[in-house]
Amino acid sequence: MSFFIGKDREARRAYGFDEVAIVPGAITINPEEVDASVKLGPRKLKIPFVMSAMDAVTSPQTASLMSSLGGLAVLNLDGVYARYEKPEEALKKIIEAKESQATEIVQEVYSKPPKESLIVKRIKESKAKGAIVAVSTVPQNAARYGALAARAGADYFVVQATVVTAKHVSDNHHVLDLKELAKKIKIPLIVGNCVTYGAALELMETGAVGILVGVGPGSACTSRQVLGIGVPQVTAIADVAKAREAYLKKTGRYVSVIADGGMANGGDVCKAVACGADMVMLGSAFARAQEAPGGGYHWGMAMPSRYLPRGTRVRVGQTGSLRQILFGPSLRHDGSQNLVGALKTCMGYVGAKTLRAMQMAQVIIAPEIKTEGKALQLSR
Amino acid sequence: MSFFIGKDREARRAYGFDEVAIVPGAITINPEEVDASVKLGPRKLKIPFVMSAMDAVTSPQTASLMSSLGGLAVLNLDGVYARYEKPEEALKKIIEAKESQATEIVQEVYSKPPKESLIVKRIKESKAKGAIVAVSTVPQNAARYGALAARAGADYFVVQATVVTAKHVSDNHHVLDLKELAKKIKIPLIVGNCVTYGAALELMETGAVGILVGVGPGSACTSRQVLGIGVPQVTAIADVAKAREAYLKKTGRYVSVIADGGMANGGDVCKAVACGADMVMLGSAFARAQEAPGGGYHWGMAMPSRYLPRGTRVRVGQTGSLRQILFGPSLRHDGSQNLVGALKTCMGYVGAKTLRAMQMAQVIIAPEIKTEGKALQLSR
Amino acid sequence: MSFFIGKDREARRAYGFDEVAIVPGAITINPEEVDASVKLGPRKLKIPFVMSAMDAVTSPQTASLMSSLGGLAVLNLDGVYARYEKPEEALKKIIEAKESQATEIVQEVYSKPPKESLIVKRIKESKAKGAIVAVSTVPQNAARYGALAARAGADYFVVQATVVTAKHVSDNHHVLDLKELAKKIKIPLIVGNCVTYGAALELMETGAVGILVGVGPGSACTSRQVLGIGVPQVTAIADVAKAREAYLKKTGRYVSVIADGGMANGGDVCKAVACGADMVMLGSAFARAQEAPGGGYHWGMAMPSRYLPRGTRVRVGQTGSLRQILFGPSLRHDGSQNLVGALKTCMGYVGAKTLRAMQMAQVIIAPEIKTEGKALQLSR
Amino acid sequence: MSFFIGKDREARRAYGFDEVAIVPGAITINPEEVDASVKLGPRKLKIPFVMSAMDAVTSPQTASLMSSLGGLAVLNLDGVYARYEKPEEALKKIIEAKESQATEIVQEVYSKPPKESLIVKRIKESKAKGAIVAVSTVPQNAARYGALAARAGADYFVVQATVVTAKHVSDNHHVLDLKELAKKIKIPLIVGNCVTYGAALELMETGAVGILVGVGPGSACTSRQVLGIGVPQVTAIADVAKAREAYLKKTGRYVSVIADGGMANGGDVCKAVACGADMVMLGSAFARAQEAPGGGYHWGMAMPSRYLPRGTRVRVGQTGSLRQILFGPSLRHDGSQNLVGALKTCMGYVGAKTLRAMQMAQVIIAPEIKTEGKALQLSR
Repeated sequence: MSFFIGKDREARRAYGFDEVAIVPGAITINPEEVDASVKLGPRKLKIPFVMSAMDAVTSPQTASLMSSLGGLAVLNLDGVYARYEKPEEALKKIIEAKESQATEIVQEVYSKPPKESLIVKRIKESKAKGAIVAVSTVPQNAARYGALAARAGADYFVVQATVVTAKHVSDNHHVLDLKELAKKIKIPLIVGNCVTYGAALELMETGAVGILVGVGPGSACTSRQVLGIGVPQVTAIADVAKAREAYLKKTGRYVSVIADGGMANGGDVCKAVACGADMVMLGSAFARAQEAPGGGYHWGMAMPSRYLPRGTRVRVGQTGSLRQILFGPSLRHDGSQNLVGALKTCMGYVGAKTLRAMQMAQVIIAPEIKTEGKALQLSR
Repeated sequence: MSFFIGKDREARRAYGFDEVAIVPGAITINPEEVDASVKLGPRKLKIPFVMSAMDAVTSPQTASLMSSLGGLAVLNLDGVYARYEKPEEALKKIIEAKESQATEIVQEVYSKPPKESLIVKRIKESKAKGAIVAVSTVPQNAARYGALAARAGADYFVVQATVVTAKHVSDNHHVLDLKELAKKIKIPLIVGNCVTYGAALELMETGAVGILVGVGPGSACTSRQVLGIGVPQVTAIADVAKAREAYLKKTGRYVSVIADGGMANGGDVCKAVACGADMVMLGSAFARAQEAPGGGYHWGMAMPSRYLPRGTRVRVGQTGSLRQILFGPSLRHDGSQNLVGALKTCMGYVGAKTLRAMQMAQVIIAPEIKTEGKALQLSR
Repeated sequence: MSFFIGKDREARRAYGFDEVAIVPGAITINPEEVDASVKLGPRKLKIPFVMSAMDAVTSPQTASLMSSLGGLAVLNLDGVYARYEKPEEALKKIIEAKESQATEIVQEVYSKPPKESLIVKRIKESKAKGAIVAVSTVPQNAARYGALAARAGADYFVVQATVVTAKHVSDNHHVLDLKELAKKIKIPLIVGNCVTYGAALELMETGAVGILVGVGPGSACTSRQVLGIGVPQVTAIADVAKAREAYLKKTGRYVSVIADGGMANGGDVCKAVACGADMVMLGSAFARAQEAPGGGYHWGMAMPSRYLPRGTRVRVGQTGSLRQILFGPSLRHDGSQNLVGALKTCMGYVGAKTLRAMQMAQVIIAPEIKTEGKALQLSR
Repeated sequence: MSFFIGKDREARRAYGFDEVAIVPGAITINPEEVDASVKLGPRKLKIPFVMSAMDAVTSPQTASLMSSLGGLAVLNLDGVYARYEKPEEALKKIIEAKESQATEIVQEVYSKPPKESLIVKRIKESKAKGAIVAVSTVPQNAARYGALAARAGADYFVVQATVVTAKHVSDNHHVLDLKELAKKIKIPLIVGNCVTYGAALELMETGAVGILVGVGPGSACTSRQVLGIGVPQVTAIADVAKAREAYLKKTGRYVSVIADGGMANGGDVCKAVACGADMVMLGSAFARAQEAPGGGYHWGMAMPSRYLPRGTRVRVGQTGSLRQILFGPSLRHDGSQNLVGALKTCMGYVGAKTLRAMQMAQVIIAPEIKTEGKALQLSR
């Protein structure tokens, strides 16, 4: 739907999670009988939850734990685990930094370069208990770390930056060819982030098994403020999901759409799937786990940049174990615990037996803001 | 009206009470001469107000009082009155819980199972003074409690959950057949909640005399945050009212549409009727009564869930007697007292002599937020 | 423009002052050379400003002062000046009431009945210095006070209530015939409030020289919260202005459209005229005058109701003389002073030499909220 | 896109920066290889940044510095530098004024008249190190100061007021003929502000090399509140950019569109260019520089008016050097530092090699408010 923002200048209206809601179905299903498993490339995962490639969330230990719980974690090969022998000390500096100095200290901590030996070590640590583990890096390092990660035993390789396209142009630098990379490394590739139909389609054509969707929506992200760039998640997910269907029809290959960022609670997770996502990648929601290395804090991977820091360190608190956040029992009514239960309950109300069916749930536009205002008024 | 939230993905825009207002009519009527009575199944009620099946609101005593004032109360058969010989003590625990522990304590209080003997006792207590009384339970207990309640003398039987459909699917559990239930128990059935035309129509076909409308709108409810599910009340009521008219035309039987949740003041009550409701079910508005068992607090019946608590305990305060809240005199300008007077005055301004006429009042879309902001600015 | 708020249920989108802005013209005029005078029935007024019929604003003294400054004030014949020999004492009680008791005390003060002798006395006081003065009452008292006011020398008679229609229906009470009243009393009649094309047209046909526009928009008014009734001013004014043009075309008689309520600053006044108003009636803006009897407080005339109090006592402060509020010099950048200067400057930017030309200024829809947020962010 | 705001009364919807976002392109470019230079009349500037003609921002010293960094500053010939031999003292009074007295003190400081000798002196000071410098005045003084400024060596002459049109009407005063002025003075003319297609086209026909766009959007501006006038920047820029293209097609001459006001961070700068601006004029963003004469405060040039003060003194703080604000390194994640880096990074993500290409970036409508709310919730 296009509107004129100026003379002869059209723009689409895009929507975010807070602007939509899911409509219950005419048939309901017992939530204990719905199936929330998902296929990602060659493997099936019990739950469609991915732990973000953020240092406050995914350590070798939490990656291992996440796999044992049925989900997938992405370990960041550009993060503190690859930069420090003793990452605990680096994390401590960030956690204990004063509010006003957080950006500077994060920049300092991340100024130490990663070591290849540490990368190998961390992958092996996370795989120690037989876990399925993904690792990520930025496009600049992808060619180098890709082979390394594959050899060290990583199960998925994620190439991730604020915006990634299949066609990057540079006269001066060598440009990463994703198609070539996908062929060369022997493990399944996941790429992103993107937010449009066209860009997603081209990324699918590189051979990736998963596409990360989300530019500018996360709680630890300020891309829109700094760069003006961003597409709210409902529209981004729906557009990329449409690209998935078109690509599936054309090629017969199913590429998973992984919503990344902007999901604060169970409701947002349900909406992401209802808009077409196959999986959801969460940062701050898992940063609240007692096991999370961020110790109650969370920060984005664009924050350390000296050039253009985007994102901030936010206090998220520690509210329960990772298991509790995923499966309950829940002591919180804000939708931050038992995310799998919330998804299954929603599937039941919608009458969707599988995630694939849930992607066709009816969604309405329904701004949330005012009801909240009223609730606050009453709770005083 | 549909908009595109993504490529080839349409969504309706739904509206809430805060987004609409009622337009005065070209003819006005003396408010003392309008008729606000309503028929619910076999009986006529003097006023279209229903007291929610919530423990902070409806006790056997307030149910009785509500009936004597011309309205109807719904006693929850899954609540503390059915679980405790001395419910006052259970309520006290909840009321006195610290903010941070409220959810846990509510969960604990509701972990004690209901007793059939207490159910019978509470119904008899509420009927003691000749009151008309409704009782409610969840679908899982409906078959069992339905017969019990009818024998104990209840006048209406309410089957209520977050979402109820006529077609619930389960391979493992016995599924409630509402049509069968309606036939078997001898007292009129009220079912809900629902929010769509289709689901409402099917619920009407079960033989129910009333349909509860509202998923996710109440002040003590966080379904949208936890599950992503919900439809704002203006649209939900208008859709279900349309189903009532279609069903009436087809069968000649009139099923009452009962708006449940999201109404904080007289204005919201008027809007609910103007959008097509026959009756309004209020929780927090009545929790403010001096007689309310919640002692100035209010909490929803989805809050005790250990699996997925939705809703929270809110402080609503005690502002006057139930009679004052319904009929005034009012000492408050916020629309929380003399709800019947507000409804009748509005009917007068609209030129509607009956509630049925009021359902055709002209409504406009008129966001409320900014005027409030301005008022605040001035009041400092 | 209509939208569907439910199945087969349409509603117009209405707009408020905060949602629109005025577009500068392609030609600009020196603001010192524009003409802001206006005709109201048989008389011409230098400025299109009317002082509300509210006790915190219009006393016999401020009515007299307002006339000497070129505008018009409306003295309320149902207010404290008609109820008390010494209104200062009554006003003092209200002004000094604690926040929590304000509604009760206002109700008490207004429980004393008006006296006809005081009505005559107040009109004569306000006329003492040769002022042009309007007086107002509610429809119930209009027949009785109309003749009285005319005899006492009032220049305009205002019949005002929350909603007034030409067709009021009552079986039990005598109903006011506005057409008859307009003929009987010899002074020009102003009636309102109304907010729709149809109701306005019928009020114009009673013979009134002015129509008051505004239901539920004022800062001291909570009609929307209490009754659900109200139409934002931009749409209400534009609709009634359209009725004025239709009536003018049909009859050749020009009836003034007086925007009443919801205008907090110069910007709102300019927008009211740009949307089609001939005059603006202000309450809280003038309650800020040092001469205002409210002593820095303001309250609406629906607040004293014991049945359904609507509106509240708000603290507005005293910011300067009435002359300063109307003509500057201004020490405030919030648009609350030099309202006439603001209107003339705006007329200059729009290129409108007269108020009639200003009524055709281009208006855009431009929500204000976010710019404010940003300004706040910077000012901290 | 037009909507009905009243019966037969249409209004366009206009958009502000907070309501849109930029969509990443299907091709991305290495940000180090994009070109952000711009032509303004006869000269090429390295960066498209203009420092506002505001006393808290542009002094002879900061004008000089801005030029050396590749941008352009506008020195206000009606400001304190032209009124005081020792402007530091005047600035100090404003900076040290209490919040409540700021407007009065600003009015007092600006009541001293400018001197022609000081004007010449300040221009020479700013040009001392070979800088390229623009100077500005209001239309009333343009004829007088234009010749003076040209002789003193100014490189651009800016005629600026809240609203400037090519057709100003006055019976009593001599009216400035911009076309004549453009011919008479030998230096390139920049005029504004304007916000519409028609007014911009007529200003271009006067021979100006640049058009300032923006009425009512700035952080130190309250034109909308005081006068009701204003057009949000996205729509204003897009409309004027369209006029530029039409004028270019007709005449072959390219007139620069300079967005003025309302840009608080890098994201807004990027959006302004994406909507069609050639350059951006910033006030508060540069008032945060350590070198800014405002010492951490900022105020608009409509604030000193005794007649109708618009705008206010805001505390913006001092966050880094001007070089850091323009080029980084950045210690802040809010987009207030490294504005050039932000613009180039955005151009890279959009796939725009030049500013001209960036003007065709895809923009979406995407309200920002709620994501912020959620971020706040998490950061507590």
